[in-house]
Amino acid sequence: MINFEYYMPTKIIFGKDTPAEVGQHVKEYGGHKCLVHYGGTYLKETGLLDKIEKSLTDSGIEYVEYDGVIPNPRLSTVYHGKELCEQNGVDFILAIGGGSAIDSSKAIAAACAFDGDIWDAFLGKEKITKALPMGVILTIPASGSESSKACVITKEEGLQKRMAVSFAMLPKFAILDPSTTYTLPAYQTAAGCCDIMSHLMERYFTQTPNVEFSDRMLEAGMITILNNAPRVLKDPCDYDARAEIMWTGNIAHNDLLNKGRVDDWASHNIEHELSALYDITHGAGLSIVTPAWMRHVYKSNKKRFVQFAQNVMGVNLPAEHEDEICLKGIEVLENTWKSWGMPIHLSDAGITENRYEEMALRALDGNETTGNFVKLTKEDIIAIFELAK
Amino acid sequence: MINFEYYMPTKIIFGKDTPAEVGQHVKEYGGHKCLVHYGGTYLKETGLLDKIEKSLTDSGIEYVEYDGVIPNPRLSTVYHGKELCEQNGVDFILAIGGGSAIDSSKAIAAACAFDGDIWDAFLGKEKITKALPMGVILTIPASGSESSKACVITKEEGLQKRMAVSFAMLPKFAILDPSTTYTLPAYQTAAGCCDIMSHLMERYFTQTPNVEFSDRMLEAGMITILNNAPRVLKDPCDYDARAEIMWTGNIAHNDLLNKGRVDDWASHNIEHELSALYDITHGAGLSIVTPAWMRHVYKSNKKRFVQFAQNVMGVNLPAEHEDEICLKGIEVLENTWKSWGMPIHLSDAGITENRYEEMALRALDGNETTGNFVKLTKEDIIAIFELAK
Repeated sequence: MINFEYYMPTKIIFGKDTPAEVGQHVKEYGGHKCLVHYGGTYLKETGLLDKIEKSLTDSGIEYVEYDGVIPNPRLSTVYHGKELCEQNGVDFILAIGGGSAIDSSKAIAAACAFDGDIWDAFLGKEKITKALPMGVILTIPASGSESSKACVITKEEGLQKRMAVSFAMLPKFAILDPSTTYTLPAYQTAAGCCDIMSHLMERYFTQTPNVEFSDRMLEAGMITILNNAPRVLKDPCDYDARAEIMWTGNIAHNDLLNKGRVDDWASHNIEHELSALYDITHGAGLSIVTPAWMRHVYKSNKKRFVQFAQNVMGVNLPAEHEDEICLKGIEVLENTWKSWGMPIHLSDAGITENRYEEMALRALDGNETTGNFVKLTKEDIIAIFELAK
Repeated sequence: MINFEYYMPTKIIFGKDTPAEVGQHVKEYGGHKCLVHYGGTYLKETGLLDKIEKSLTDSGIEYVEYDGVIPNPRLSTVYHGKELCEQNGVDFILAIGGGSAIDSSKAIAAACAFDGDIWDAFLGKEKITKALPMGVILTIPASGSESSKACVITKEEGLQKRMAVSFAMLPKFAILDPSTTYTLPAYQTAAGCCDIMSHLMERYFTQTPNVEFSDRMLEAGMITILNNAPRVLKDPCDYDARAEIMWTGNIAHNDLLNKGRVDDWASHNIEHELSALYDITHGAGLSIVTPAWMRHVYKSNKKRFVQFAQNVMGVNLPAEHEDEICLKGIEVLENTWKSWGMPIHLSDAGITENRYEEMALRALDGNETTGNFVKLTKEDIIAIFELAK
């Protein structure tokens, strides 16, 4: 185990009807005037937006609506949100939705307290040290962004997708009501489950030895998702299964499960270029990239891939067939994700052109390699796209 | 899964040589003059105290030593600590040690900011809303008190052992260096492992249905302790095994793993009376009480005890023999703890007199029952002591 610090002060409020308490939480963290940032019509159709706004009003909190969230959130959304905040004297940002709502809210919160163009922070030229306080009502469990300090934004020009990281952007609270996810379409539900599994896998596939407790907890998370995804795909209103997915999704990415170990993130980096270029759902990009990444790298640590196959994917083959066990684990994962309706190949998502080198170079962003489990070169990334064809 | 809130803002600093950084952490949380609260000679013998005090000095922090920690911490220690703080203008408490050091430090921190006699808060007559900020250097992984808001103190008169709970007493940071536990005697190491397992078991044995992810994480913790306790008993300087125990011990009791479920705490409540009366190590009291509690209650939820036997204790018997599986799981646990050198019966700890009724009444503290998995009456508690004879 390697040395680490762990600090996660986001308050989680979990369970049925908790969004109706949001006013008191905004108040607790000093909010007087809220930007309510969301996207799409489902919040109005389900009556959730009314409940949230009633709670704000009941707690004496004013608000401005910003119905501007789009998938793979864009920089122009951030600029416009900042303008709205400045025009209205907003002192608290409330994100309603999933990763896109939360990430654009984080960027707006940071932009409001930032001297200059916030994009410079995403380019690594400047640091984010301050932000307006923000809270989250999570309705799409996937990104884990509700208790992470990271935020991913795409600049329209050149479709540059970049990440900024700062404790200043960590949400003060996150409200997780599993019943708000009942209306999530099957495809988005499955994509969210792939994203959660990927967050666990990016941590699980490490070359750091002696990480037993976190290994067991990561396996706990993956097994829980594998057990509960089919349940919600069959019955979208299965509260218990929705709750397991939502709670696992939070812990999967709240920084706890990579403590003491070097994590990877190559699949995420490669996927970001895929979804930036083709605007596919992040979880769908991951269900394509991850198995291909696994096939490409498994030989660098067969012991770990055997452990994954046996402990997570339930592969039960004689120990001497190491390669077979590793590959079977990957195959079972692919078949599982396929059974959830997810694409496993680029062609499944309608991507047939070869822009592999272009995406590889973008994923490397000027660096020689990406990832830690295996340090992937441009050639490695192209080979992974070839495997994913 | 039941609704919950989770909020754990204690910063964990984990790994080799981290105590030498303590000064900067005290400074970060606004400390200028520290009470350094510890007990015994090992901190001086190992040179750890020198390292800690050098770090404080290097960060410009003054300090007063209080070598007053005793096992099952007493109220008089708290009163004296408060006096020392007041005489010296202390604004930060630094606990070095295990649960006893941390709990008496929490009580001192609260007493310094409390108007009146702090014991009233332990009697439930008053609430603790303020405390001096405090930090921890953990050298005995067991209590989990380094990131909990609870604190247990014994009043000498009548050996009353009582708990107070307040977010105000939550440590700002906790430094966990596994190598500081190399010198821990085998018995205390084993007792700590029993305590950690008990913290996991008090959460695991629940009647709340649909708690899959937390079940799996609790099992992850128990399995990790079962795997690593024998390693450190064989080689006290096995860093990796010490690290697994220390990290598991922290997560076991940082409030994460009982989220969404009703926990029990009957074994802890009963044990508190045992160690208050006979001054035995808390972990040793638990290794006596817990298996007896299990035998007494298992019939109320055999499915859960079967799950424990199979998933944690590795019992592999035909599914139709439900009772046999449950009892085998308990037996394997007893034999495991015995192999670590822990007492399993009251007689193993030299307790042969029958003061069961007296202890039962004290554990109930005026209530009809204690515990949640099964609500135990006086008769139940006496029956548990009889089973533990």
